[in-house]
Amino acid sequence: MSVLDRADFEALDAKDPLAFARERFHLPDGVIYLDGNSLGALPKATAGKIDTVIREQWGQDLITGWNKHGWVDLPRRLGAKIAALIGAQADEVVVCDSTSLNVFKLLSAALALRPDRKVILSDNGNFPTDLYMAQGLAQLLGRDHRLELVAPDKIIDRIDTDVAVVMLTEVDYRTGRRHDMAAVNARAKAVGAHTLWDLAHSAGAFPVDLNGTGADFAIGCGYKYLNGGPGAPAFLFVARRWQDATQQPLFGWFGHAAPFAFETAYQPKTGIDRFLVGTPPVLSMAALACGLDTFEGVDLSLVRQKSLTLGDLMIQLVAQECAGFGLTLASPTEGVRRGSQVSYAHIGGYAVMQALIARGVIGDFRAPDLMRFGFTPLYVRYQDIWDAVATLKTVLTTAEWRLPAFNQRAAVT
Amino acid sequence: MSVLDRADFEALDAKDPLAFARERFHLPDGVIYLDGNSLGALPKATAGKIDTVIREQWGQDLITGWNKHGWVDLPRRLGAKIAALIGAQADEVVVCDSTSLNVFKLLSAALALRPDRKVILSDNGNFPTDLYMAQGLAQLLGRDHRLELVAPDKIIDRIDTDVAVVMLTEVDYRTGRRHDMAAVNARAKAVGAHTLWDLAHSAGAFPVDLNGTGADFAIGCGYKYLNGGPGAPAFLFVARRWQDATQQPLFGWFGHAAPFAFETAYQPKTGIDRFLVGTPPVLSMAALACGLDTFEGVDLSLVRQKSLTLGDLMIQLVAQECAGFGLTLASPTEGVRRGSQVSYAHIGGYAVMQALIARGVIGDFRAPDLMRFGFTPLYVRYQDIWDAVATLKTVLTTAEWRLPAFNQRAAVT
Repeated sequence: MSVLDRADFEALDAKDPLAFARERFHLPDGVIYLDGNSLGALPKATAGKIDTVIREQWGQDLITGWNKHGWVDLPRRLGAKIAALIGAQADEVVVCDSTSLNVFKLLSAALALRPDRKVILSDNGNFPTDLYMAQGLAQLLGRDHRLELVAPDKIIDRIDTDVAVVMLTEVDYRTGRRHDMAAVNARAKAVGAHTLWDLAHSAGAFPVDLNGTGADFAIGCGYKYLNGGPGAPAFLFVARRWQDATQQPLFGWFGHAAPFAFETAYQPKTGIDRFLVGTPPVLSMAALACGLDTFEGVDLSLVRQKSLTLGDLMIQLVAQECAGFGLTLASPTEGVRRGSQVSYAHIGGYAVMQALIARGVIGDFRAPDLMRFGFTPLYVRYQDIWDAVATLKTVLTTAEWRLPAFNQRAAVT
Repeated sequence: MSVLDRADFEALDAKDPLAFARERFHLPDGVIYLDGNSLGALPKATAGKIDTVIREQWGQDLITGWNKHGWVDLPRRLGAKIAALIGAQADEVVVCDSTSLNVFKLLSAALALRPDRKVILSDNGNFPTDLYMAQGLAQLLGRDHRLELVAPDKIIDRIDTDVAVVMLTEVDYRTGRRHDMAAVNARAKAVGAHTLWDLAHSAGAFPVDLNGTGADFAIGCGYKYLNGGPGAPAFLFVARRWQDATQQPLFGWFGHAAPFAFETAYQPKTGIDRFLVGTPPVLSMAALACGLDTFEGVDLSLVRQKSLTLGDLMIQLVAQECAGFGLTLASPTEGVRRGSQVSYAHIGGYAVMQALIARGVIGDFRAPDLMRFGFTPLYVRYQDIWDAVATLKTVLTTAEWRLPAFNQRAAVT
């Protein structure tokens, strides 16, 4: 492999078919942002849109905004935009609540499809809140459900006729390791189990094909690759075939067949709306709408292609520039097995990341020792990879990460 | 009682000790807003604050905002502000999720305190989503819990040793009828039951004294009297004595003892934080913070006093001006038994309300025939009551409410 230099990266930027999308974001000067997998960058349209929603819609129209501005339809309208990114029909996705809560709802619905089975199967790299929600549900049900965790590469083999639900995050939040969704869905279907996918690190990062691969249920996050802002509402997907055949236990008025009839007995709506609970958070939803609009006219296959090239180049460049500093690649080298991030283990991972952030290269840290670098091809440039690795090399060469200032842990790390 | 005229109302405004608070709100020209019990008006500070959070905090500081701007503490910081309005300690309240979801969490926690009892007692005027959540939870538990509904005035008598939880909305969303919280709590305590109060129409409307009256659990809404904006996050209260003795089943990472240790097993935090679930919605929370700040320096006993006077005057004025048009008062005349609204039944209630709205007097309608007029003393003036009743008289006198345009129901009514 030839030695890379900055001109190679500049050349790739010059012919990048997605370069136009970067203009849709506000990116602070002097910052290389490789943490869009944790919190997406701010779309330029968001502040103005929210100001309009606040001053004109809420301020001027007050309660009449619910009808006049279609606030009541936001869960479905935003769901339809997300559906286009994840291989779903417009009426199979709604935006609502948090990812955690949506796990609870859909896991409950999925378990009810197989009352004869007790195993919720997941992998030991799944994001903790998904596992916690499963534990809480199992405890609440008190019917001997058990959450079984195996290593990610043992999942397919473990899917058997005792498994009720296979609950997986497609892309591992730490390593970026990606499951083979089609193979998991096929195996689950073959043994009569159902699948619940967490698309937190998938939706907006690459094309997802829920219906094409036969997924049953999915949930995902609005504030990572979908650029909805800190704590943005989440989404959920229920394949049409299960919408009227299942129910979720959080009976709220927005899931009622006639919410404004104010009946005392719950009667679920038909279709995806029965998975809604409370009143939609209009301001947060309006911000998420702007995040989703950054995908307008964007070809997701180009996003995937650029994401993999960014990752491949980072891996090659770190090997070229930072050998001998104790970095261990924690992500798959093979693109097809990787999401849109590259992670490195380092004994001083926390401190190295703090030192990088102090120099304007923002990734993040995940215990015990992982530094994550996420690629959001809508706004990350090839030259950013060169510059980020050059900064990493500086931090490691100078050993400045050993300074006490970089070793004090903050609340959120 | 002497005949009222507009000068009486102007005189009351001239000496209103809360008049200063109206300046904290944006109120559209030509509108009399009597629906702050459904969606509070826009505080003047909100748009600017949200713009700062979006452009400066999110836009410039990106992921580092979680620590730098204390986003992670928002549930507690806002909870402490609400605690001051409802007679709670700062560490007994958090802002999170929706009212519906908070009902589920706290009802579940409360039921677990009395596993020997099966009755969830409520009244048949409770807001439907509360009842739905109870139905969903009971069905999920599958342990013969039953939701029993009695007339509001039969609640106290029905609280007996078979009741696990008394779940009530303090103020009836339709009639404004207010429960005697102290009496209910005392009776519940005497028979070993626990109480769960929905303060949707209480918090910010008048002084609530949760601890003084011995309440166990409470939830409430951020978008009514607290002025947090459409779909604002909700809050929940757990008395200190129950915080570590109970748990809620929605195990999310923000309720974990060490959320950023990313352990696979759920371990609840101590204290009120264990009632949190997912990532806090920062933009919505920032808006709610502005809503709560409108109470700064406001004496809630003056709010209550003004609210009751507004209601009393409306009742007297409607009787004086609108007799013979088929209006029936649906609210208690006695102030101590009333929240901060007055409702009238009318055969054409929906259409009359639409005609009022067309003339700039905004209240709302609740099936089957109720017109609601809510009083938010921070921004409603006495003269608004005169003008609203004058408009009501016009609508009824002209019978314009019979026009077809006013009789077509919208999605949200």
